Amino acid sequence: MSKLVIVGTCAFDQIETPFGKTDKILGGAATYIGLSASQFDIDPAIVSIVGEDFPQEYINKLTSRDINAEGIEVVKDGKTFYWSGKYHNDMNTRDTLVTELNTLESFNPVVPESYKDADIVMLGNLQPTVQLSVIEQMTSPKLVILDTMNFWMDIALDELKTTLKKVDVITINDEEARQLSGEYSLVTAAKIIHSMGPQYVVIKKGEHGALLFHDNEMFYAPALPLAEVFDPTGAGDTFAGGFAGFLAQSGNISFENMKNALIYGSCLASFTVESFGTERIESVSKDEIKKRLQQFKQLTQFDIEFN
Amino acid sequence: MSKLVIVGTCAFDQIETPFGKTDKILGGAATYIGLSASQFDIDPAIVSIVGEDFPQEYINKLTSRDINAEGIEVVKDGKTFYWSGKYHNDMNTRDTLVTELNTLESFNPVVPESYKDADIVMLGNLQPTVQLSVIEQMTSPKLVILDTMNFWMDIALDELKTTLKKVDVITINDEEARQLSGEYSLVTAAKIIHSMGPQYVVIKKGEHGALLFHDNEMFYAPALPLAEVFDPTGAGDTFAGGFAGFLAQSGNISFENMKNALIYGSCLASFTVESFGTERIESVSKDEIKKRLQQFKQLTQFDIEFN
Repeated sequence: MSKLVIVGTCAFDQIETPFGKTDKILGGAATYIGLSASQFDIDPAIVSIVGEDFPQEYINKLTSRDINAEGIEVVKDGKTFYWSGKYHNDMNTRDTLVTELNTLESFNPVVPESYKDADIVMLGNLQPTVQLSVIEQMTSPKLVILDTMNFWMDIALDELKTTLKKVDVITINDEEARQLSGEYSLVTAAKIIHSMGPQYVVIKKGEHGALLFHDNEMFYAPALPLAEVFDPTGAGDTFAGGFAGFLAQSGNISFENMKNALIYGSCLASFTVESFGTERIESVSKDEIKKRLQQFKQLTQFDIEFN
Repeated sequence: MSKLVIVGTCAFDQIETPFGKTDKILGGAATYIGLSASQFDIDPAIVSIVGEDFPQEYINKLTSRDINAEGIEVVKDGKTFYWSGKYHNDMNTRDTLVTELNTLESFNPVVPESYKDADIVMLGNLQPTVQLSVIEQMTSPKLVILDTMNFWMDIALDELKTTLKKVDVITINDEEARQLSGEYSLVTAAKIIHSMGPQYVVIKKGEHGALLFHDNEMFYAPALPLAEVFDPTGAGDTFAGGFAGFLAQSGNISFENMKNALIYGSCLASFTVESFGTERIESVSKDEIKKRLQQFKQLTQFDIEFN
């Protein structure tokens, strides 16, 4: 089975939306990526760091889905990364209320020996030099996927650019693509980001879907329009996990197959937003996923004939 | 050949974008709808009103594309509707600088006798009671398509609701769908708008594409991502003209065929934004359209197999 190395945060999230407020619940980029990728027939491992306050129950949630947790360092007497945020009524914008880095400040990821030969690495949003240190531990990865955000463009742009040279696929949102490239048009922005390293540029547009750029080719995966978005937290990471997980399972990293990966990512993300935290992505069944993929087909496929 | 009745403004537009500024040029909803619809093998007629200042050359632009102009009333000593606007740097928002209704204030549309039996009516954005008066002149239209905007929701909501009872397809943008329905989710908004009359709800999202809703079905047509958007004026009307023109040509108003119509609309709109005013939609060739439709296929079609 194809190995997938996932690096990122395992965290406590506390979320407020117009629908309610949670206590501290399981969150973090690596958590969502892992739960999403574990929908596929692959061998995923999470590399992360938590404190002693991180419940064993949360680790069990991961390992019960056959996610290897050997690379999750538990810091004695340490506290787990904690994020709290509040969504506005439109559910597209949010305020961060609290960010406590805690053990994340000294995160020095160590890829377990048996995963160093993995074909695919999915780097969740982290300090770019930390992401680079993971790439350097891998023997000969076929595909390195990196997620990042505006925060690192603001305070660590040079480090990010150095890391990007070793990256095959970058996933960022539309505003971040504009910031990183200095171009408003996403087509032009993608070309400039190509030239920084990544051959493939995935631009996430939230409720407006996601675009994949490669050379002069483009592909567009819509987000599934939903009657109710309950909690958008983790949608982008679920998307990335579905993308990486599908590619790992199929063992085919062609542009054509990345189209399918983008649809899988978008499909899985549509479940995550249906309830608070990881609840829905933990419980979704293969049948539900299949039905929703059919909805994506109906949503996008047309039959204009050309002669 | 299938007849299509188009009602709306023929106008002078004066446009300023970050790329430059025009003099008064040919514009108006009916103009863009007509030029777009005339790409198909149909018999379209425009019903509109202009002043004596409207150049014969502009009328010729329409008739040379086999658009019947009998229903364009020319008011002696009257002045043509004039709109001037300035786009912001993001090209998604604009300020209206001048609106002079002129002859439009006394527009009393008269559908030419030989077009009263047309199967499809495309009502461009106008006062809702004026739109209704056109529907009432038709013998037995199979499909009435109506475009409108927030302005009428603000000042003539009751009239709009009365007109909507006679409408099969409404095209509005996302903010207008939210305003008309009072719902943020577009899925829920479409359901409420259905209940006002239109069986089909098309929600235009500009650079984010367009959604078609019917009962519990949805279809999504992306906008083609472009390296450069030169002038968005008329994109929505070009979209509507492509949608209506394709349906008229195929004589098939099923939901499945509306998917193709949505793609055609989006495809033709992608040309309009490539230069100022009607320049590009006037000059585009059948071959260019065909090539771009292929791009839409590549942009959206994927081949996940289900077993």
